[in-house]
This record gives sequence, structure tokens and C-alpha cells, in this order.
Amino acid sequence: MRVSYSELHDILFRVLARTGFTRERATRCAALFADASRDGVYSHGLNRFPQFITTIRNGVVDVDAVPRCLARWGALERWDGRRGAGNLNAQHAMARAIDLSRDQGIGCVALANTNHWMRGGSYGWQAAEAGAIGICWTNTLPNLPPWGATDPRVGNNPLVVAVPRPQGHVVLDMALSQFSVGALVAYRTRGEALPVAGGYDTEGRLTCDAAAIEASGRLLPIGFWKGSGLSIVLDLAGALLSGGNATWQVPADPRKETGLSQVFVAFDLSSVADAHVAARVADQIVDHVRQPSGSDDTVKYPGQRTLETRRRNLAEGIPVEPSIWHQVQELAA
Amino acid sequence: MRVSYSELHDILFRVLARTGFTRERATRCAALFADASRDGVYSHGLNRFPQFITTIRNGVVDVDAVPRCLARWGALERWDGRRGAGNLNAQHAMARAIDLSRDQGIGCVALANTNHWMRGGSYGWQAAEAGAIGICWTNTLPNLPPWGATDPRVGNNPLVVAVPRPQGHVVLDMALSQFSVGALVAYRTRGEALPVAGGYDTEGRLTCDAAAIEASGRLLPIGFWKGSGLSIVLDLAGALLSGGNATWQVPADPRKETGLSQVFVAFDLSSVADAHVAARVADQIVDHVRQPSGSDDTVKYPGQRTLETRRRNLAEGIPVEPSIWHQVQELAA
Repeated sequence: MRVSYSELHDILFRVLARTGFTRERATRCAALFADASRDGVYSHGLNRFPQFITTIRNGVVDVDAVPRCLARWGALERWDGRRGAGNLNAQHAMARAIDLSRDQGIGCVALANTNHWMRGGSYGWQAAEAGAIGICWTNTLPNLPPWGATDPRVGNNPLVVAVPRPQGHVVLDMALSQFSVGALVAYRTRGEALPVAGGYDTEGRLTCDAAAIEASGRLLPIGFWKGSGLSIVLDLAGALLSGGNATWQVPADPRKETGLSQVFVAFDLSSVADAHVAARVADQIVDHVRQPSGSDDTVKYPGQRTLETRRRNLAEGIPVEPSIWHQVQELAA
Repeated sequence: MRVSYSELHDILFRVLARTGFTRERATRCAALFADASRDGVYSHGLNRFPQFITTIRNGVVDVDAVPRCLARWGALERWDGRRGAGNLNAQHAMARAIDLSRDQGIGCVALANTNHWMRGGSYGWQAAEAGAIGICWTNTLPNLPPWGATDPRVGNNPLVVAVPRPQGHVVLDMALSQFSVGALVAYRTRGEALPVAGGYDTEGRLTCDAAAIEASGRLLPIGFWKGSGLSIVLDLAGALLSGGNATWQVPADPRKETGLSQVFVAFDLSSVADAHVAARVADQIVDHVRQPSGSDDTVKYPGQRTLETRRRNLAEGIPVEPSIWHQVQELAA
């Protein structure tokens, strides 16, 4: 089943408005969810929306809270997310980092006390659309065993790096587990094996069976010890810069996950480079990576599939799960 | 065979001074190499030193060149490394980023036209010692096939993230290949299998055989497609911010690798946090990650082994390869 972008945005807007968001905030929040589905990140688009509404109803997310600036040091600011909507808070923080970068070449907002930012890539695309190189990351609840342990003590702390390119922005949006929890669910639901080992089964054997990894909770960090280390330093940097919680302080129950720490950095590309030169440099890099060589013309740059999916979904409609679509219609009724 | 730190520094200093470095620069350059060996990063300490001298003799590295500031935009500066010594250039760039962060909360130096920075972790430890959170990365020659290709088109672009902690800084220093080229050589020399698959053999099968991976040149990025994507965006960001070369423009012969692009970012922790509070926050995070749970008290934080090795090597002497030690003595004679 497919729906148009405007149908999708419209129904999300109506639910959000009736849930208590102002019209302006409901419009932006609906767009963040609709854009995720439009771009093929279904797990953090429509499919995540009912759970988002639940977190408002159970008090995890405060619909009225807007982020507040606590302190500024030159090009670095610290903001309090006040447990508001995580995606609106993150969008605000990246916008502010971009503003700072216009003045200072680089800008950074460290955001404490916020909620799940949904699709992290949103804030990378936002930076790239504004002509800025964007880097941002979030901590999460403990959902990943660090290398050497079997119980989840670190987060899979998604990291986003985005580079503007007029022919198609290059946007990396990756959790530090080899597969996100949402990806494991999707593989299990489709009855497919993971393409590479994604974690351990309950016997401690590496496996491509998503269900076995969900059962053990032993997801693999990317690069084994390397992703584990990256998760630790990103959590440290996020908690220290924002003054907010570290992963160990975040409730381990996904329904209660709140009080996250995030960092948004923007580098103003228009300060340092002529737009035409920057576009050519970026195109050359992408072209060299993608060049077909012999039989392997299968190399994609980060964000390439997103754009392909976006074009298809805007032309043909956005695929929706009928059960979730009906659930959201009931929320809007 | 083990030598004292002062013996090691002394001989490196003498070779560098006779190679044309000023006394002050020879002292710092020798310390960067000696510190790497002291900390157990032998591949980028003494073992790399003869090759470094060769790059001076063959004109890749200009001993007289000091980096020059080309432009400043607030907290972001662009510097030209002028093909000087890569480790001295990188140390200078991180020092400058730290200075900027004292004024602006965050500071960034993008450095073009530089040489191999040797041990990337040096500049992370430097930031942490100065009380700053440091993030830096470099591009490299093409030494890694991107996901979907079999020929090296991207770099393994080492990434460093460092967080100050008085009880022991947390410093991640990782190449984006699962194993660095140096690590493959070390495993092969010791006749050991890699602990996890590090690449493909010439038949296209994943393997733990270092020699087979060296033969195929098909190293694996960390996290497969994820590390491949990270390599691409870091190369883009480095080339665009510095105005320097991208990986595709760097000579593919390791003996001729030059003209690299690097980015150094510092966040001034003393701006945002009381020192005692920051130390406690960092300790709590590290303690929660390391907590023994059942049989697995094997979790290390990034940098922990470095400190353990540093203490042992300072107490017992630094292990050196006799053949390389003699080679360096001949250079000094």
C-alpha cells in the first residue's frame, strides 16, 4: 500500500495538532516523520509514529517544551532540551549550530535532556541543504555490549556525517551496532538472514540469524573493538559537553528512554570555498569512488540510495504498512 | 632488546638534527616518535623512523617547511602544511585548534598539503593533556576498497577521538580498515591468524590470513559498508575544509604518499565544566563500561592498554627491533 507525501504529512500533522503541538511545530514534526518514510527510513518514519505518540501520553515527551539556551562560549553553545520532542529539539540544535558556523566558520550545540531524535540522518540532510558540513551524534539507552562483555553497557550511539553536494548530498547515518535494533526486526520479519554476522546467539556463537541476536541481546559493534571504543568516546563527549546524561544513566527500557545527550557540529562550507569549486571537488571524489572497474559497478556513496528511494516514493507513493496506517488514522479520528 | 626512553629520544634527536631539523623541531619530532614506541605503537614509532628519514632524502618531506595560516573565519582556520614533517604539522595544527577553543569554546584547523602524521593518537593525547576533547582525522593514499569494489579507491582514513580524564585519558585511535596495513604485517610476521576476518583472499573469500589479505589488497572496512561510508565522508570533509587533496589525488605508492588533508577539532572542556565535575562524570562512564559482570571483566576503555604499556615500557625499557635499532644508530653515526 502506498500513499502520497501530502496524505502522509496531513494525517501526521492532524494527530500531532490534536496531541497538543502548536500548528507550526506539528507541521515541522510531521515533516520529519514523513520525510523519513519518503526517504526509505520506514523504521523511523510512519512506523515509529504510534510509539512517539505513546511517549507523549506516558509523559516521556513534553509536547510544550521548547529547547532553551543555557550558556554560550563563542562558537559553542549548551542547550537544555527540556524533554521536548526529540526530533524538533535536534532540528533546532542543528539549525543553531549552522547559524553559529555562519559567524564563526564552525558552530557547535551540545544538547542535554532531550529525547530520541528519530531519524538521525534528518539533521545531516538539514546541514547539507544549508551548505554546511554537519556532524552529529546522540547517545542512547544501553543496547550494546562493549567488546569483551556480554551485557549491554554502551549505546549504539548513531553518528551522522553530511557533506553538501549539489548533485546529491553525501550523508552517512549509521548506528554503531552492525545492525540497528530496527534492522534486526526487519530481517526477522522478512525471514531473511543478515548479510554478515550481526551478533551472537545465546550460546555465544556469531550468527546471521536476527531472531537469535534479539534473543541474546548481544549485537556486534561495527568493527568489533573499534565500534565499541567509538561508542564509549561519543558518549563521554556528549555527556561532558552537554552536561547531560551518559548512557548508563538512561533508562534501559525503550519505552522509557529519555534524557539523552547530543552534539551538533556545523562547518560553514561557504566560508571556506567557492560554491562551484566545492561542488566540483565533491563530484570528483564521489565519481572516483563510484567508477565502474571491471565487473563491480556496485559502489554507492552514502545517501545515494536515499535519493533514489526519495524519487521513487515521491513518484509512486510512499509504502506504508496497512496496519500502522490504520492505527494512525484512528489516532487522527 | 629494550632501551630507555632517553636513549631512544637521544638517538632519534641526533639523526633528525643531522638531517636538517632545527634543535627545537628535532626535539619535538624525536619525542613524537619515541612516545609512540613508549606507548606500544611500535609501527609508528622507531619502526617507522628509517622510512621517515627516507622520505626526507627523497624529497617527499621538506625538513625546513613550517605550516602557514592561509585564512581564518572565527573559530575555523585553514593552514598549509607545505609538505613539512607530518607529525610536526599535525601537532602544530592541534595546538592551534586548542588555542582557538580557549577563546571560542570550539576550534578547528583544516590542514592541507601535509604528510603522514605517523601515530594519529599523538594529537588526541595532546588535546586531552590540554584539557580539550579532541577529534581529528586524516585522509591517506587509496589503500582500501570501498564496499562493493575490489580495488583500493578510498583511504583507511584514521580517526582519533580523545576525552580528558585525570585518571587516564580516553583516546580512540583507529584506522577505518579492520586492521591497519601495519597490523597485517605484524600478524604475518608472528605467524598468527587475525582474531576476526580482516579482508578477502585473491579468490574473494573472507579470511583471517594476513598474508592472503596483503596479497589481494582487499582489506575490510570496519563494519563493512559502514566504515566504507565513513571513509568517504571524512575524505570529502577533509578535502573541502582544507582546500587540499582528496584520497584519489594522493600517490598510491606508500613511499610517495604526500599532500594529505587533515582536520583537527578541539572542544574546550574547561569552558563548559568544572574540572572536578568533569572528572567524576568521565570516571563514572568508564567505571560503568568496565564493571566486571560474571566472568567477563575483560572490557577495556580506549587508551587503557596504552597507559599500561607506557608504564611498563618506562619501567622496563622500550622494546626495539635490534635490526632497526642498529639501522638508526648507523644513521646517527
